[in-house]
Amino acid sequence: MSIAIEKIRRDFQILDQIVNDEPLVYLDNAATTQKPKQVLDVLRHYYEQDNANVHRGVHTLAERATAEYEASRDKLKDFINANSRKEVLFTRGTTTGLNWVAKFAEQLLQPGDEIVISIMEHHANIIPWQQAAAKTGAVLKFAYLKDGELDMADLVDKMTDQTKFVSITHVSNVLGVINPVKEIAKLAHDHGALMVVDGAQSAPHMAIDVQDLDCDFFTLSGHKMAGPTGIGVLYGKEALLNQMDPIEFGGEMIDFVYEQTATWTELPWKFEAGTPNIADAIGLGAAVDYLTELGMANIHQHEQELIDYVMPKLREIDGLTIYGPKDNHRRGGVISFNIDGLHPHDVATALDMEGVAVRAGHHCAQPLINYLDVSATARASFYIYNTFADCDKLVEAITLTKEFFKHGTV
Amino acid sequence: MSIAIEKIRRDFQILDQIVNDEPLVYLDNAATTQKPKQVLDVLRHYYEQDNANVHRGVHTLAERATAEYEASRDKLKDFINANSRKEVLFTRGTTTGLNWVAKFAEQLLQPGDEIVISIMEHHANIIPWQQAAAKTGAVLKFAYLKDGELDMADLVDKMTDQTKFVSITHVSNVLGVINPVKEIAKLAHDHGALMVVDGAQSAPHMAIDVQDLDCDFFTLSGHKMAGPTGIGVLYGKEALLNQMDPIEFGGEMIDFVYEQTATWTELPWKFEAGTPNIADAIGLGAAVDYLTELGMANIHQHEQELIDYVMPKLREIDGLTIYGPKDNHRRGGVISFNIDGLHPHDVATALDMEGVAVRAGHHCAQPLINYLDVSATARASFYIYNTFADCDKLVEAITLTKEFFKHGTV
Repeated sequence: MSIAIEKIRRDFQILDQIVNDEPLVYLDNAATTQKPKQVLDVLRHYYEQDNANVHRGVHTLAERATAEYEASRDKLKDFINANSRKEVLFTRGTTTGLNWVAKFAEQLLQPGDEIVISIMEHHANIIPWQQAAAKTGAVLKFAYLKDGELDMADLVDKMTDQTKFVSITHVSNVLGVINPVKEIAKLAHDHGALMVVDGAQSAPHMAIDVQDLDCDFFTLSGHKMAGPTGIGVLYGKEALLNQMDPIEFGGEMIDFVYEQTATWTELPWKFEAGTPNIADAIGLGAAVDYLTELGMANIHQHEQELIDYVMPKLREIDGLTIYGPKDNHRRGGVISFNIDGLHPHDVATALDMEGVAVRAGHHCAQPLINYLDVSATARASFYIYNTFADCDKLVEAITLTKEFFKHGTV
Repeated sequence: MSIAIEKIRRDFQILDQIVNDEPLVYLDNAATTQKPKQVLDVLRHYYEQDNANVHRGVHTLAERATAEYEASRDKLKDFINANSRKEVLFTRGTTTGLNWVAKFAEQLLQPGDEIVISIMEHHANIIPWQQAAAKTGAVLKFAYLKDGELDMADLVDKMTDQTKFVSITHVSNVLGVINPVKEIAKLAHDHGALMVVDGAQSAPHMAIDVQDLDCDFFTLSGHKMAGPTGIGVLYGKEALLNQMDPIEFGGEMIDFVYEQTATWTELPWKFEAGTPNIADAIGLGAAVDYLTELGMANIHQHEQELIDYVMPKLREIDGLTIYGPKDNHRRGGVISFNIDGLHPHDVATALDMEGVAVRAGHHCAQPLINYLDVSATARASFYIYNTFADCDKLVEAITLTKEFFKHGTV
């Protein structure tokens, strides 16, 4: 395998447990990933040695905390290859990041302007745009699918000279497909539109270069990339962030505050009102260190190997429908599926009885689920610690589940 | 002392360190408090045993994570004595909570309506109201001070039948004064206004009963009450939260999502878009357990004892000005001061050389600092682990600092 899997697994104590009398096989990584001890150690070290509020203090702990917090920003800058640390804003996660961009859109959009997204977007990349459209009189347009992936012809068709924002997920959390966001960014720019990339499902799994993608905004969640919950990053091009009004107001984002007015400080702090999530920002920096040490290309390769291994076995199972692209190399490590005659919630519950953790539901993508004309799907999703044995166990558990519901007494 | 201080100190490993060749005396608790090992253990246990995304999963880890996350909400409900768990919204912290309330105000305010705050408010309780006023044509009015505390006559004077929101800090992060928010809430209600309490500096230090205070909104920050960074609570009365539009949009806060519209789910989740800060919400629950075990009345009493002990010694120091109320029993554990002829940043730096961590600056309260007609203050603030010896060290370090700058060669 492309990464030292047994060594990696020793870093994730949580994986070494029995669930329903079976060893845990954690395949819910698109929802959240587990955290290595290196990240947990950094969190604990911060709290046990250096914890203080940042930026405002001149005492020793405050200086240490500030240095670590800002060093983490530099790590994230390098991780996505931003041009400047001013372009790296700490947020609560991708949802917050996308909401902020849509708020910025409300500054710019005029009646009749158009926003183009795709039918495979997560609710976090749909509802903020609905709100922006409703508030400004802009029109929200959807590009649809072809053969389980984004229909590029339809997307091109939806873009006009009225298009001001194009916001597309880098990797679908349901279909698993990797979208050609670099190409889409070029199309968007050709129409004078800004390009927003929802990177929640890509940043954890492949090398990201926002300058190469030439996207205007990019957003990620720490908890989906081996980092703590409650922290994420919004990347935006510096010129745009300078144009963008702050979203939250309070301490640390100001220059001067008078009774009736206030002025803002410089990037990136203009967007970071109040005490930030200091510990988790530092923890996310540790996660980036961990992933970088493994190598993002290796991580992507590892997940490709798992997909290449498991997909033929899944396709052999009678009555199993897999959503998304047929070409394995056009997808990340996400597999949504249904079994004929079974509700995906029952499938997920049955798999859990075998120790296999998968998700079932609409995956926060109801318009896509409606478009696929199903009520829900089950979803298995992989990460750095998953093995071929996990794949075998998934296939075995699905087969057992089929048998159980065929002959079972439930 | 009213709490078992030596036992408590053993829970805070960070305090047992040498800073600039001196034992650390941490007196920057109004900025952020330290976390006991009980909280850090809960965080680590969550990540090492139960980490999964909440609400959406049927597998074992997801059920465990959801149960712990929602149990923490119940702990917070009890901690502030909310009437219902629907009234307890997890936020990033007080800044986010106050911003949300001001966004709600934008729904309700009409031109000519009035918002009343005080000159001692933190920027987080000023700028969101400036924004709400600017967007709606409402008027932002300030109540001023008398004898180092809120001038109640002025506050009463500022309230009219146009007053729609009154937003006041429970405890000033600069003056240390405890404001009579229960009384103010009654006044606000008499004028038909809603009462908002900034509890960032009170919830960590005294028993909070939002039903007894009869405030409409109350907000707190976990990191200021022995909890992790990145998590806080906004309390709002259920009827108001039902009226209030969600602030962030995305997964988990929805009922149905169509291409052009969406509907919201019920309280409290209507306000919690996306993956919440699960681990830190659970960590905050552990902090609440810790504080409750000590007893909030005991904590308040302990800080009163420290203030009663140190204040006479500070008042003896020639050239030392202390801001805030003269009556010690009208203040929490915050002491802002200046030394004649010395800049507070130099004072804080000099104290740090003695191992004493205090803050210096405008404390995110520039209008108050301007009103006090100073450029900044130094600030010492106490918590459960501070001792009489810490008080002595503060006094000694201030005295040494005075001597140093009098005779020093800097």
